Amino acid sequence: MAKIENERQVVRSNVDVVLCDIFREITQRKERGQVAAYIPELADVDIESFGLAVVDAGGKVAAVGEADTPFSIQSISKVFTLTLALGRFGDRIWERVGREPSGNSFNSIVQLEFDRGIPRNPFINAGALVVTDLILSGHEPREALGEILSFVRGITADSSIRIDETVVASEQRAGFRNAALANFMKSFGVLVHPVEHVLGVYFHHCAIAMSCRQLAKAGRFLAHLGRDPSTNLMVVQSERARRINSLMLTCGHYNGSGEFAYRVGLPGKSGVGGGILAIVPNVASIAVWSPGLDVNGNSQLGRVALEMLTTRMGWSIFGNFQ
Amino acid sequence: MAKIENERQVVRSNVDVVLCDIFREITQRKERGQVAAYIPELADVDIESFGLAVVDAGGKVAAVGEADTPFSIQSISKVFTLTLALGRFGDRIWERVGREPSGNSFNSIVQLEFDRGIPRNPFINAGALVVTDLILSGHEPREALGEILSFVRGITADSSIRIDETVVASEQRAGFRNAALANFMKSFGVLVHPVEHVLGVYFHHCAIAMSCRQLAKAGRFLAHLGRDPSTNLMVVQSERARRINSLMLTCGHYNGSGEFAYRVGLPGKSGVGGGILAIVPNVASIAVWSPGLDVNGNSQLGRVALEMLTTRMGWSIFGNFQ
Amino acid sequence: MAKIENERQVVRSNVDVVLCDIFREITQRKERGQVAAYIPELADVDIESFGLAVVDAGGKVAAVGEADTPFSIQSISKVFTLTLALGRFGDRIWERVGREPSGNSFNSIVQLEFDRGIPRNPFINAGALVVTDLILSGHEPREALGEILSFVRGITADSSIRIDETVVASEQRAGFRNAALANFMKSFGVLVHPVEHVLGVYFHHCAIAMSCRQLAKAGRFLAHLGRDPSTNLMVVQSERARRINSLMLTCGHYNGSGEFAYRVGLPGKSGVGGGILAIVPNVASIAVWSPGLDVNGNSQLGRVALEMLTTRMGWSIFGNFQ
Amino acid sequence: MAKIENERQVVRSNVDVVLCDIFREITQRKERGQVAAYIPELADVDIESFGLAVVDAGGKVAAVGEADTPFSIQSISKVFTLTLALGRFGDRIWERVGREPSGNSFNSIVQLEFDRGIPRNPFINAGALVVTDLILSGHEPREALGEILSFVRGITADSSIRIDETVVASEQRAGFRNAALANFMKSFGVLVHPVEHVLGVYFHHCAIAMSCRQLAKAGRFLAHLGRDPSTNLMVVQSERARRINSLMLTCGHYNGSGEFAYRVGLPGKSGVGGGILAIVPNVASIAVWSPGLDVNGNSQLGRVALEMLTTRMGWSIFGNFQ
Repeated sequence: MAKIENERQVVRSNVDVVLCDIFREITQRKERGQVAAYIPELADVDIESFGLAVVDAGGKVAAVGEADTPFSIQSISKVFTLTLALGRFGDRIWERVGREPSGNSFNSIVQLEFDRGIPRNPFINAGALVVTDLILSGHEPREALGEILSFVRGITADSSIRIDETVVASEQRAGFRNAALANFMKSFGVLVHPVEHVLGVYFHHCAIAMSCRQLAKAGRFLAHLGRDPSTNLMVVQSERARRINSLMLTCGHYNGSGEFAYRVGLPGKSGVGGGILAIVPNVASIAVWSPGLDVNGNSQLGRVALEMLTTRMGWSIFGNFQ
Repeated sequence: MAKIENERQVVRSNVDVVLCDIFREITQRKERGQVAAYIPELADVDIESFGLAVVDAGGKVAAVGEADTPFSIQSISKVFTLTLALGRFGDRIWERVGREPSGNSFNSIVQLEFDRGIPRNPFINAGALVVTDLILSGHEPREALGEILSFVRGITADSSIRIDETVVASEQRAGFRNAALANFMKSFGVLVHPVEHVLGVYFHHCAIAMSCRQLAKAGRFLAHLGRDPSTNLMVVQSERARRINSLMLTCGHYNGSGEFAYRVGLPGKSGVGGGILAIVPNVASIAVWSPGLDVNGNSQLGRVALEMLTTRMGWSIFGNFQ
Repeated sequence: MAKIENERQVVRSNVDVVLCDIFREITQRKERGQVAAYIPELADVDIESFGLAVVDAGGKVAAVGEADTPFSIQSISKVFTLTLALGRFGDRIWERVGREPSGNSFNSIVQLEFDRGIPRNPFINAGALVVTDLILSGHEPREALGEILSFVRGITADSSIRIDETVVASEQRAGFRNAALANFMKSFGVLVHPVEHVLGVYFHHCAIAMSCRQLAKAGRFLAHLGRDPSTNLMVVQSERARRINSLMLTCGHYNGSGEFAYRVGLPGKSGVGGGILAIVPNVASIAVWSPGLDVNGNSQLGRVALEMLTTRMGWSIFGNFQ
Repeated sequence: MAKIENERQVVRSNVDVVLCDIFREITQRKERGQVAAYIPELADVDIESFGLAVVDAGGKVAAVGEADTPFSIQSISKVFTLTLALGRFGDRIWERVGREPSGNSFNSIVQLEFDRGIPRNPFINAGALVVTDLILSGHEPREALGEILSFVRGITADSSIRIDETVVASEQRAGFRNAALANFMKSFGVLVHPVEHVLGVYFHHCAIAMSCRQLAKAGRFLAHLGRDPSTNLMVVQSERARRINSLMLTCGHYNGSGEFAYRVGLPGKSGVGGGILAIVPNVASIAVWSPGLDVNGNSQLGRVALEMLTTRMGWSIFGNFQ
């Protein structure tokens, strides 16, 4: 076991070096993907932006690039709403949403018709709308949103985190696909609350703006069996933290989930704002941001950066050099 | 780090106890699923059968139940053919088969039509037929089959492993769905060799019979970065071992892959014979056998046993108590 | 040719007798299907209702049962909106809607995803929404609706025809599936006008109430090459009248279109209010009403009545005794 | 009624003139579609070939172009096998094949999976394989084929009609898609006979070679309520002749059936050899041949010729000038 200990020490001392190497490599890349075009506010983001932050078990943060610039976390918010809903409703949520990879793009409606309105998992848009509907139980939309925002501020100990209202307005104007998904599920009775309430809360929590540093902090409870090491408080039961990680691994990157698992080997959740939250169980929480997206809607260079990081640090959950 | 060391020692000393508890629990279960009905030879297997074997990093084997009774490994053979094909052709195999979860049942043909004959991943039947077609390159069917069998005998150091010809005959009589898949891919030019050659080799490697003890040994190279600890020989590159594990996690249980990852938290591959091979990276290789299948065609009690094992041992790759 | 003449005379003298026989038969049937349940206003209609009206080339009307009771024409209105849109935009409408049978149920969304928002034909809900969107060009919703209503009143020469506002309200409360379809097409840019405008006009024209007698009159221009024999005015070009008939035959009964063509052998369009408009080219226009629906959402006894009528009268377009 | 009589006399005297005009027009067309590439024997046919034959109720034949050159009738043979099967088994055939348009291409397998092996209609390949399986009941393959060939020779009174064995050989070498369809249906138990028997008979009857003149004669029973006017014998019951016509209209041109109905307005069945058989109920039987196919696999100029013919002659079943 001595060998492991040495290895891990080496790793710790090296993370800053590795981050610098990644930063040098990424900034030189020409092929950066495409910035999300369908939301004007996101389309205006500089495609050259890049940030990366890693928080280890002890709370030490290593960061490079624009790690303190807030960006729109978009679908990464689905990790937080799922955590909230599991906390309030437990395994009853699986009566209204599945937990299998979808084999389709993030906003596909085909699967919904075959499965009579039950989405495949909570990380595709339809599934996240169901989770939002659950959080609305017993709440006015404003309260539900307040609960989500409080949760995110709580796990980051950062009350400055806010919702970008111009992104909300932008999404609401262009949100026809999500409106289609919500109305479709409503027609099957899978959504309980008014469609406009569900969409309103959903568009707002997707528009939460966070920096890589904030996001990496927010993911710590997932790296440490549900406990936030900075406060020692349980955010979610150990069992559930593990299971959220497994859902991130199998479903966190839409139709590119298999590719991400294959190359990066970590649970991760992407957003069309170009961010990815990735978890090294027991070891670290990582956030990366590069706004250019690949064909599946995942950050192209974000994934490349994470692949370099896990390879160099030996962090893959599928086997590491000890 | 001392804590980890103690924990692991505890774990080692406890695996036999945990296996006994699992054995007691499983033998009392009434609800055992359904034995695969479409292959007469499999339908005749006693649904009460149960075996479990764990090989740790040092080579120590813990086993309970019928751990030495050979059973038909069926789709678990796809792990070995994928390993062989990756060794011979490297990443070129991904030109003919994808690596995303399918979101469909194991023998669905729908996806194939949309993707013009390219299967979603190497662990659904269509993908495994493509892998078999690759192994046929430059070989007669008999040679290709010999190569597969030699490989399996090699990694288990057990030349007694054989193919059950009555199962082969049984599958060939009932193999219309696989014949449909093969002909369909052939119509798109995705298969190169004659359909009957591909089907012949495929039916034969699915009919390999192994015991839990043999199967757990065969999986050791996946637990140890591609190296077989008993011989110190590299079976496959480290990178590839990790990636095979990631494919097992995302795609190894057909349309129940998400469920398996959620509950067991290990890379695993099931077969309709009722076996499951599961990998604890860096720690252990596990094989379990219980012939009753759930609705997705995966061993029902095999999964339950593995869930108990990973929970008690803290072996989930998504976070463990250290 | 003398034979033809005699036959047709016989036919003319017999239509009243045939209608009486049909009425006797239909009123005795126990198995009447299910009244549309999803719109409360429709669910309240008496399932025993039955009406049938036939207008021949000379304008003579034969009718039995409740042929003067108004019912909700629902999707039959799609024939009139298609006629209007073809008049205003000609063949350009086919850039936004296809003319092939859908092979799916009336409110399926699956096809739309594969065809990037272009509906298969103007008689499924999605296609009718596109036609409504076209009619909205250059109009406020109220004007568009006025144009549709004026058209229907014009071809029936009956200004008493009105929209049932309680049905509109009922549909709007339960119209989640149509809202899903409209938003989905809007996300592809296939709809030009605001979703709520399109849905508003659509729900209103579906809620037009007409009796069998009025509806049979309204279909006369389709039976007579686009010309209304009562006024001698061309409602639509001859070519287009023929083509609307062909669309009614191939697509007029959703996923039961083949069945209707097979059994009745006439162009026809059904509505979930239980009405069917059927056309005997060159000979007659027919409207039938029986509110119980079959599994495909078409009037069950309405089809049976039409089958008896075409068989007895020799009116099938696929061959008749002359 | 005098008017009708005159009109019809005019029509009769004009058909030769119209055919000459069509011939002139078609031979000048540059855009002729693509000859079927997947069967080498068909790919060798001269794309400039064109023939057209019309047989009226009295038996008079009008013909232009290569109306006496035999071509491979391919899927048009499905009309004859359906007629045979309906004669032997009646409406029981609908337990194994539907009669709705498919909304998919001629060799799609997707629908089959959703409908558990039951094809949508007898004119897509899967449906025709089921019909062939029915004809095999109680027969050896050779006998079944003999029955089909005898039937075709009988209705044309032409014993010189034969099967082109080089086409058969060509199809058998390239028939992977059909083999996939047959094996797929066999896996659901929808086919009763050995897959190779069904495929063998199917490939043979598709390879029947006929000229336009022969084919037009073969279709006369469909134009005349099941009776062959030349012999006065009933080939099939009146009811069934009408229904075969309705199936040809709704399903006879694969995914271009709506388009054909819309433009030509006649029941018709196409084959990838470039032939189309079209029926004018009570009036005429038509065969056209032009080997270039459109994107749906239907003869491109064949359809254009038929559209010209029905427009000029007023033969559309959806309304004609009388």
